Amino acid sequence: LENKLITLTTDFGLKDPYVGAMKGALLKVNPGAVITDITHLIGAGDLPGAAFVLLGACRYFPPDSIHLAVIDPGVGGVRAALIIETARYTFVGPDNGIFSLALQSEEILRIVRITNAEYFPGPISPTFHGRDIFAPVAGHLSLGVDAGRFGEQIDIDEMEKIALPEPSLENESITGEVIHIDNFGNLITNIPQSMLDGLNAFADRDRVIVRIKEREIKGIKDTYGESADEAALCAITGGTGLIEIALNMGSAADELRSKAGETVKVVSV
Amino acid sequence: LENKLITLTTDFGLKDPYVGAMKGALLKVNPGAVITDITHLIGAGDLPGAAFVLLGACRYFPPDSIHLAVIDPGVGGVRAALIIETARYTFVGPDNGIFSLALQSEEILRIVRITNAEYFPGPISPTFHGRDIFAPVAGHLSLGVDAGRFGEQIDIDEMEKIALPEPSLENESITGEVIHIDNFGNLITNIPQSMLDGLNAFADRDRVIVRIKEREIKGIKDTYGESADEAALCAITGGTGLIEIALNMGSAADELRSKAGETVKVVSV
Amino acid sequence: LENKLITLTTDFGLKDPYVGAMKGALLKVNPGAVITDITHLIGAGDLPGAAFVLLGACRYFPPDSIHLAVIDPGVGGVRAALIIETARYTFVGPDNGIFSLALQSEEILRIVRITNAEYFPGPISPTFHGRDIFAPVAGHLSLGVDAGRFGEQIDIDEMEKIALPEPSLENESITGEVIHIDNFGNLITNIPQSMLDGLNAFADRDRVIVRIKEREIKGIKDTYGESADEAALCAITGGTGLIEIALNMGSAADELRSKAGETVKVVSV
Repeated sequence: LENKLITLTTDFGLKDPYVGAMKGALLKVNPGAVITDITHLIGAGDLPGAAFVLLGACRYFPPDSIHLAVIDPGVGGVRAALIIETARYTFVGPDNGIFSLALQSEEILRIVRITNAEYFPGPISPTFHGRDIFAPVAGHLSLGVDAGRFGEQIDIDEMEKIALPEPSLENESITGEVIHIDNFGNLITNIPQSMLDGLNAFADRDRVIVRIKEREIKGIKDTYGESADEAALCAITGGTGLIEIALNMGSAADELRSKAGETVKVVSV
Repeated sequence: LENKLITLTTDFGLKDPYVGAMKGALLKVNPGAVITDITHLIGAGDLPGAAFVLLGACRYFPPDSIHLAVIDPGVGGVRAALIIETARYTFVGPDNGIFSLALQSEEILRIVRITNAEYFPGPISPTFHGRDIFAPVAGHLSLGVDAGRFGEQIDIDEMEKIALPEPSLENESITGEVIHIDNFGNLITNIPQSMLDGLNAFADRDRVIVRIKEREIKGIKDTYGESADEAALCAITGGTGLIEIALNMGSAADELRSKAGETVKVVSV
Repeated sequence: LENKLITLTTDFGLKDPYVGAMKGALLKVNPGAVITDITHLIGAGDLPGAAFVLLGACRYFPPDSIHLAVIDPGVGGVRAALIIETARYTFVGPDNGIFSLALQSEEILRIVRITNAEYFPGPISPTFHGRDIFAPVAGHLSLGVDAGRFGEQIDIDEMEKIALPEPSLENESITGEVIHIDNFGNLITNIPQSMLDGLNAFADRDRVIVRIKEREIKGIKDTYGESADEAALCAITGGTGLIEIALNMGSAADELRSKAGETVKVVSV
C-alpha cells in the first residue's frame, strides 16, 4: 500500500544543505513522495523538545502518513534505528524516545529495528544517517514496502522512552512546570486540562489560581480575549490540551522573564 | 471545481508544532492538496505586515489558487471568519483586514461568513482556529465545495478593512514612510512609482531627490548596480512597484539605523 | 520530457513576500511542478556560501531534477542568466559561479544563455529577476521545453566560475581553512578526506593531528561519539567528505570562537 505523505522533523536548521540533501535522498527513492515539513528548528539534540513538537503535530495528519524525525545527538553511536507501525501511522527515526509522547495516543502494532542495508545501499556517512539511512528507508516505506522487510521485530519494552516531567497532585494543589515557550511567548505547562476535569476543587474554573514566579493568575479562560484587563496575564487551555500562561497582545515569557523548567502551581480558592 | 493549490501565510513561526498541525488538518480533509508556504514569520499579530506580504505574493499565483492566511491576534474573539471569492482566487482567513491590500487588484465576487460547522466538526480549540476551522474549511474548498455552503453571504461593507498609511502630495513634494524592511535591509516605502508617473515635476527621474533622516539621495534608479558609487544609498523602484531605499552590497537599514515608520520625502530639483 | 521536480535555493530570507512570489510565478507556468526548498537563508549575496550549499545538496536529488538558484548581488546588472544541462540535472540561475562546486561532479552537456523573452513575457522588474525571469524559465523547462529554445549556446569557458580557497600541501602538512559553520556549530573545512587518503603520512588516522587556534586535536574519527572525552573537540569526516571540527554535545564554533576563514592545519606525528 502506497503512503505518499511523509512529514519531516529535524534539528538540522534551515541554512545548511542538510534538509535539502535528506529530501533529495528520499525523493530519489520515491519521486512521488509528498514531503511536509513539521519543523527543522528543534534545538540541536533536544529530545524532549522534539517529543513535544511531534506530540502537537503528528496526530492531525491523515491516516497512513509516515512521520520521519531525525534528532540524533551523537549520530550513529549505539542507538538503533526504528520503524514503529501504529494503527494510524508509521513513525521512522532513531531509537531515543522522540516519539514517546506522540505514541501515547496511538495503538502500536509492530516495532522493527532497521538493519537491512538493501534499503540503504550507501555509502553511509557515520554522521549523516538522516540522509543515508532514514531518508531512503522512509522512501521505500512510502512505496509500500512492508516494515518487516527492514529488519527484526522488537518488543515495545526494548524501545527507548523519554519522560517529560510529570505534574504532581497533593492536597488539591497541582505542581507542574513550563515545558515549552512558543512563538507568541506563551508558556506551555505540562499540566493537562484533563487533570483538572476530574477534581471537585477545580470544578469552578473561575476560582482556580495559577501561580508562577510570585504572580497569581485568577481563573482559567477559554481565549486570550476573555480577560478583563488586556494587559493582564491569563491562563488558558491551549491547542494541545495543556494549561498555558499567556499575555493578550504580548509575550508572557518576556513579562515574566520565564524559561522552560519554571515551576507552575494550580490551586483553588 | 477542484483547486489543489493552497498558499499559507501565518505568524506561527517555524519552531512550534502549529504549522505542521495546521497542514495536517488541511491534508486530512484533502490529502491531494498542494500547500505552498508564503511565510510563517509575520510578526505576532502584525496585521499591516501580513497585508503587505499578501500584497507582494498572492497575485503571482495561478488562477484558482486558494490563499489561506491566519494572523489572528486574540483568536476566536468577536471577529468573523471569511471566504472571499474573487475573479481569480479564493481568500480564507479571519475578518481583520489582512487581505485588504491584496484585494485591491482583485475583482470581488462574493464574501461568505463561515458558520457551517459541518465543515469543521471539531473539537474546536478556542485558541487555534487555524488548525480547527480555517484548515478544514480550506481543505473542503480545495475539494470543490461551493463557498456558499459555508455560511451566509455578506456585503463588502461589512468586511473589516485595514489602511496602511497613505503617502500625501503637497507643492510637488510627496511625503510617505517606510512600511517594511526586507531581508536585504532595503527600506520599502508606501510611495508607489505610479504616483510619480503622473507628475511633471518628477518627469526626469535623475532630478528626483529622496530625503530620509537628513540624507539626500539623488535620482531614482532601475537597479542597485546603476549607482556611480557602490557604497552610496540609492532609491529604486522595487519589485512590488513601491519606491525603495537600498544600499548596493549592503543594508540601507543598518546604514540609516532606520525602522518602519520613518518619514520619507520625494521632491524634485 | 517533463521534469516536475524543482529545487529552490535563494538568499531571499523567509519573512518577505519574495519566496512566495517566485514560487507563484513558477507554478503559474507549470501548476504541476513540485518545488522543494533547499534553503532561502544563504547570506545576502554570499556566492561562496551558495556554492557550498548547492554542493552539499544538489547531487542527492533524483536524475532530471531542475536546480534553480537565485543569489544575485546587484541583480540585473551585466551578468548573464544561464541554463546548464548536465548528464543528470538542469541548473538554472545567474552566471556568477554559484554552481561551480556542484558542477564538479556533473558532466556538462550544454550551457545556454537565456535571452528569449517569449518564456518570460514580463513585465520584468529590474530588481527581481528571480520572480520575473528565472521562475518562469524553470517552469517552462519543467514542462519539457528544450533548453536550446531559451537562447544561444555558450562555451564552458564563457561561464563565470567561483573558486573556494584551496587547501595546500607542503612537507606532509596540509593547510586549509574553515569555509562554513553549520547549525550544530561544526566547523567545516575545505580539506577533503580524499586528500589524506593518498598520503602515507596520514595512513594511520589516529596519528593525524588537526590544529586550529593553538588547539591540537588528535586523530580523525568516524563519529562524534567515538571520542574518549565527551567534552573534547574532535575532528571527523563530515557528510560531504570534508574534514570537520566538532564538539560532541556542544558547539565547536562557540568553544573555539572561530569563524569562516580560520586557518586549519593537518599534520601527522
